[in-house]
Formats: sequence, C-alpha cells, structure tokens
Amino acid sequence: MKSLFGSPGMISGLVLRMGQCLFAASSLAVMASASGFSTATSFCFLIAAMGLQVLWSFGLACLDIHALRLKKDLHNQIVLSLIVIGDWVTAILSLAAACSSAGVTVVFMKDTEICSRSQGSLSCNTFQVSVALAFVAWFLLAVSSYVMFWLLASI
Amino acid sequence: MKSLFGSPGMISGLVLRMGQCLFAASSLAVMASASGFSTATSFCFLIAAMGLQVLWSFGLACLDIHALRLKKDLHNQIVLSLIVIGDWVTAILSLAAACSSAGVTVVFMKDTEICSRSQGSLSCNTFQVSVALAFVAWFLLAVSSYVMFWLLASI
Repeated sequence: MKSLFGSPGMISGLVLRMGQCLFAASSLAVMASASGFSTATSFCFLIAAMGLQVLWSFGLACLDIHALRLKKDLHNQIVLSLIVIGDWVTAILSLAAACSSAGVTVVFMKDTEICSRSQGSLSCNTFQVSVALAFVAWFLLAVSSYVMFWLLASI
Repeated sequence: MKSLFGSPGMISGLVLRMGQCLFAASSLAVMASASGFSTATSFCFLIAAMGLQVLWSFGLACLDIHALRLKKDLHNQIVLSLIVIGDWVTAILSLAAACSSAGVTVVFMKDTEICSRSQGSLSCNTFQVSVALAFVAWFLLAVSSYVMFWLLASI
C-alpha cells in the first residue's frame, strides 16, 4: 500500500481536511453576511454546497485525528471506497456551486448594470470574495479526491 | 493490464468519444444559434469550452479508430498520462462552463425578469437546451476521465 501526501490518517491529510473546512466555512459565512444574496438561486446553492463541504471535511478531519492518536491504518478498501464516493460528490457539487455563482457575479457586475443600479442593496464585492474562497475550498478538496482515488485504484 | 469499458483502443472507448463530440458540438451549435448569447460572458465561455471538447474528443476518436484498425495497444504509461491530463482539464472546463451558464440561465428566467422583459431578443429556451446538452457532454467525458485515471493508477 502506497502512502501518498494527503492520505487518510496522515498529518498532511489532516492539514488538507482542515484547510477545506476552513475555506468552505469562510465562503459560507461571507456569502451569508452579504446583503441581497437571496436574489440569486446560485448564491443559495453555494451556501448549501459549502455547508455540505464543511460537514464532510470536518467529519474526515475527526477521523484523521482519531487514526493519528490510535495509530490506526485507514488504508482498507471499504473505508477508501466510501471516502472516494463522498469526496467526488462533494467536490463536483462545490465546483458546480462556485462556477454558477461566479457566472452570476459576472452577470451582475459586468454584463448588466444590476450592481451599479442596486445602490448598495447588493454587496457585489462580498459575492466575489465568497466565490474566490469557494474555489480555494474546491481546489483543496479536489487534491484530496485525486489522492484517495489513486490510493483506491492502486490497492 | 486491465481492459475496462471505455478504454482507449476499444469499441466502447470509441463510442464514448463520439458521444462526447456529438453532444458538445450540438451544445455549441444550439448556443451559437441563440439570439443574444453574447449578452452573458458565461455563454461565450460555454461556446469556447464546447469547442475545445469537440477538438479533444474528435482527436481521441481518430486515435481509437487508428488503434482499432491496426490492432495497436494504447495501454502505455506515457500515452495514458497525456490522455488523463487532457481529459481532466477538458472535463473541469466543461463542467465549469455548463454550471456557470446554468446559473446565468436561472438568473435570466427566474430570479430576474430579464427574459420576459426582453420581448424575444433573448432566446432563453434555447439557452436551456444548450446547457442541458453541455451537461450530457460533460457526463460522458467524466466517464472517460475516470476510466483513464483508473487504468493509469493500476498500471
């Protein structure tokens, strides 16, 4: 069994999971604090997807801490298969939410004059920050997903 | 070397590539024929991403035909690595384009009254059809990407 950077039950894996959790939570908090986020369905979807990612990454970070403390080996096929499925579903949802929100932000700020005409009722800069944080959270999750898939395929 | 459904140089692989090419080309054609697609940056991005996917899938379909005719084996690490990288980059771009266009379509049709107020200058139903075709094209490409990654990891 190979032991790659970011494998479950390793310090690097734990750091990746905590990073995912942190960036997803920040993206969620920033979007929820932006005035007028409920104008667009995509922004509500971003909040839901980031909420799911926070729960998933936090759960796996706890599993990593448990494995590190008891020096348990998490490299068995059933555990890895479950983690791979969850990781990929969460990663695809996060990317979908981040991209649709980015598309909507561009429509609001550049393609139409919705932002400039809203006179402060839409905090468009805050939407941008939230989308950027969501992309970072997705990138960290994608790294974990590839590592898990690689480990599963090479068992 | 395992030989999975959709492997390069197999009939199933060729069918998958031709499906990807067909759906991506249809999505591109439908979007390009919709009036007012240049209103949103995401729709232009969709056209670019689908164009890239058409070129990529067509190239690999030709490679499959070549391998089938000459009974060549494409299962070597260098060829697979190149296909995996290209597949994943194209798949992520296609999903990003499809999701951002879907977000913008929802904003146009549901969240604001841009579609109903446009009085026919925006063909919103055509946008929906194009986005749906783009999602099918992405799904077929994602299947190929996973098969290639699995083959590469299990060499």
